[in-house]
Amino acid sequence: MEPGSGSGGAGPAVTPVAAVLPAGGSGERLGSATPKQFCAVQGRPLVSYTVRAMERISWISKIIVVVSPENIETMKSIIEKYGHERVMIVEGGITRHRSIFNGLKVFAENEFSNHLLQKPEVVIIHDAVRPFVEEDILSKVVLAAKEHGAAGAIRPLVSTVIASAADGCLDHSLERARYRASEMPQAFLFDVIYEAYQQCTDYDLDYGTECLHLALKYCNTNAKLVEGTADLWKVTYKRDLYAAESIIKDNLSQQVCVITYVKEAVAQVGFLLHEYLKSQIKVEAVSVSLSKSDSHLQDLFSGQCYNFVCINDKKYAIQETQQLVDMLEKSNIPLLYPVVLISVHLGVSENISFSIGMEELTRIKKFAREVKKKNILVYGLLIQYKNLFNSGWYGGSWLSAYLNGNGLQ
Amino acid sequence: MEPGSGSGGAGPAVTPVAAVLPAGGSGERLGSATPKQFCAVQGRPLVSYTVRAMERISWISKIIVVVSPENIETMKSIIEKYGHERVMIVEGGITRHRSIFNGLKVFAENEFSNHLLQKPEVVIIHDAVRPFVEEDILSKVVLAAKEHGAAGAIRPLVSTVIASAADGCLDHSLERARYRASEMPQAFLFDVIYEAYQQCTDYDLDYGTECLHLALKYCNTNAKLVEGTADLWKVTYKRDLYAAESIIKDNLSQQVCVITYVKEAVAQVGFLLHEYLKSQIKVEAVSVSLSKSDSHLQDLFSGQCYNFVCINDKKYAIQETQQLVDMLEKSNIPLLYPVVLISVHLGVSENISFSIGMEELTRIKKFAREVKKKNILVYGLLIQYKNLFNSGWYGGSWLSAYLNGNGLQ
Repeated sequence: MEPGSGSGGAGPAVTPVAAVLPAGGSGERLGSATPKQFCAVQGRPLVSYTVRAMERISWISKIIVVVSPENIETMKSIIEKYGHERVMIVEGGITRHRSIFNGLKVFAENEFSNHLLQKPEVVIIHDAVRPFVEEDILSKVVLAAKEHGAAGAIRPLVSTVIASAADGCLDHSLERARYRASEMPQAFLFDVIYEAYQQCTDYDLDYGTECLHLALKYCNTNAKLVEGTADLWKVTYKRDLYAAESIIKDNLSQQVCVITYVKEAVAQVGFLLHEYLKSQIKVEAVSVSLSKSDSHLQDLFSGQCYNFVCINDKKYAIQETQQLVDMLEKSNIPLLYPVVLISVHLGVSENISFSIGMEELTRIKKFAREVKKKNILVYGLLIQYKNLFNSGWYGGSWLSAYLNGNGLQ
Repeated sequence: MEPGSGSGGAGPAVTPVAAVLPAGGSGERLGSATPKQFCAVQGRPLVSYTVRAMERISWISKIIVVVSPENIETMKSIIEKYGHERVMIVEGGITRHRSIFNGLKVFAENEFSNHLLQKPEVVIIHDAVRPFVEEDILSKVVLAAKEHGAAGAIRPLVSTVIASAADGCLDHSLERARYRASEMPQAFLFDVIYEAYQQCTDYDLDYGTECLHLALKYCNTNAKLVEGTADLWKVTYKRDLYAAESIIKDNLSQQVCVITYVKEAVAQVGFLLHEYLKSQIKVEAVSVSLSKSDSHLQDLFSGQCYNFVCINDKKYAIQETQQLVDMLEKSNIPLLYPVVLISVHLGVSENISFSIGMEELTRIKKFAREVKKKNILVYGLLIQYKNLFNSGWYGGSWLSAYLNGNGLQ
């Protein structure tokens, strides 16, 4: 995120912005019966990742997902299951352009919605099958659209583009450096793109795919082109689903945050765990008082970490775990990916072996089940303090094995 | 493979064909210090997969891999480690075109090789970072090159292509349906492409990338364009490495072949294993005499199966295993990916529990070590016959767990 472009910045935050996600594709290039936007990636449909990527950005007020009639119920159940809140489903048309047009109509024409939604100044158009869109590029295209009327992300061409003659032979090839691939997201002043769709021909609606082209042709608006990052690629083929899955696994397991109380003995255990894990994974270690105002912890929670290990010396420290869960929930971390919180409880007694009562166990399990709905996966680990030091941290190897594999759950 | 286009067919087989693989890229788009062609995919450098994909095609007589000077030693060690035999390394130039030109010179200019190689009629040019090239498309471009002088694989465009104006705004967009992405492989009459490289300017050599363009510009040869499959994509970004890894894992684990002796009791075990595995993986079951002339087995060995389970009722059936290994080696299967052969030995005695002598164990381990060099991974499994039926095939679950994970070794 760039300074001033984020949720609290002076950038697009002051502009009413909505997003339209066409999600009506058939997935024929994927070679699968399920359209690609509904294919499961790590157990969750791809479209849900894309919706979350937009939803976590506070200055996007409404997300219109346009799906084909036969997928409306599927999309409804996804919204319910993953708790998407700023999303509205609109029935798509038979082509991409017709679907986008339907999505825009909910802001302008009464018959497409029970209540007319407030018309945004800028509307983002983004594909449901590009899940890794970042706030930075969204912010850039929105700001550029405010200035130029239209804007779109571009990428260098990976292959040379050629034109074939009628006999199936090469006619000419384009000089690669002079051309770009038009990607998503794109953004438009609402009035520009809506006007373009109202003016355009049936031929455009049926055979065209490029919104920037419509803005140029019908509103004389030359879109600003914004260089995007490689993340913007579109899930098109089966190999792209594999890649998406691996990227998500990578995101989930690339960092762990070890949180310990300020108490000396516990902090020492945290230090040992940090030493043990740091050769395998990026580790951030903090020693905190767990008071709600702890700013270091808040900073961490606004970062890119999805794995937390909290070490304390109480046997059933459910209050502390609850406090962490509350803080995580208030952050926007669990919105995008599941957060793993491993609560490690150190036993201080030297000779008495650990045991846990059925009632306690039930209470902890119930708590874990509840917070799982909030996309936070809580695990508990009881470790006997004395053994811990004697054994050179067996717990560490358990934890690291767990963290490396957490994407697999 | 199309009829008549393969190794034994009347197609390119009668034409002397060589291949040049430019492998000099720096991998800057990958965001990695290691150039992408040398990145490990399932433990093996990407370029080795591409070399094997060419090498398994018998009618390609020589494969010239062009690498930058600093990677010559790396490439040498890859050739040695993975037993590539028809490969020659050539030092690349500072650009793609200069590297390809160097590769071609070994067939035409004495100073680029200790002994001048026989000039091929047709030369294939293929990227080292497109490992999934099939014989079918190679055969098609070679035949088309013979007829037209030049030919190249093409794919539909994934994104719209646009041209930007000097101010960074959209100038115009291309109608997607009229253009194609130029991919690899390409093939040329050697004299056409060599003439084109000799004629072309330094500007072409330094800034151009498209061989088809040179053939058109300098030899007036309009290349035949051949629609390729989605497999032809180029490993460009990190996500492509992820995708390549998943595709290879998929290839390795999608099918298992269960081979049993004709003896009734053993065949019954094979049937049970087949029933157990078939819900999880594609299973081909054969009951054979293991004679060398068994044509059914030979057919299987020319297919796409990389996992074999061989069931017999002898405790140390190393001869039978040896025989299978010989047949596998003669097929071209282990050239591309490692083959897994699990040799299951059923104990027929009811009460005596199994044991294995140290000497036998050493012999079996030595055998497995030797055949591993041929890319065949042999594992042995001793199962007591009586327990097997009583327990409802515990062995089956072990095997299926193993097969599902075999890509991970």
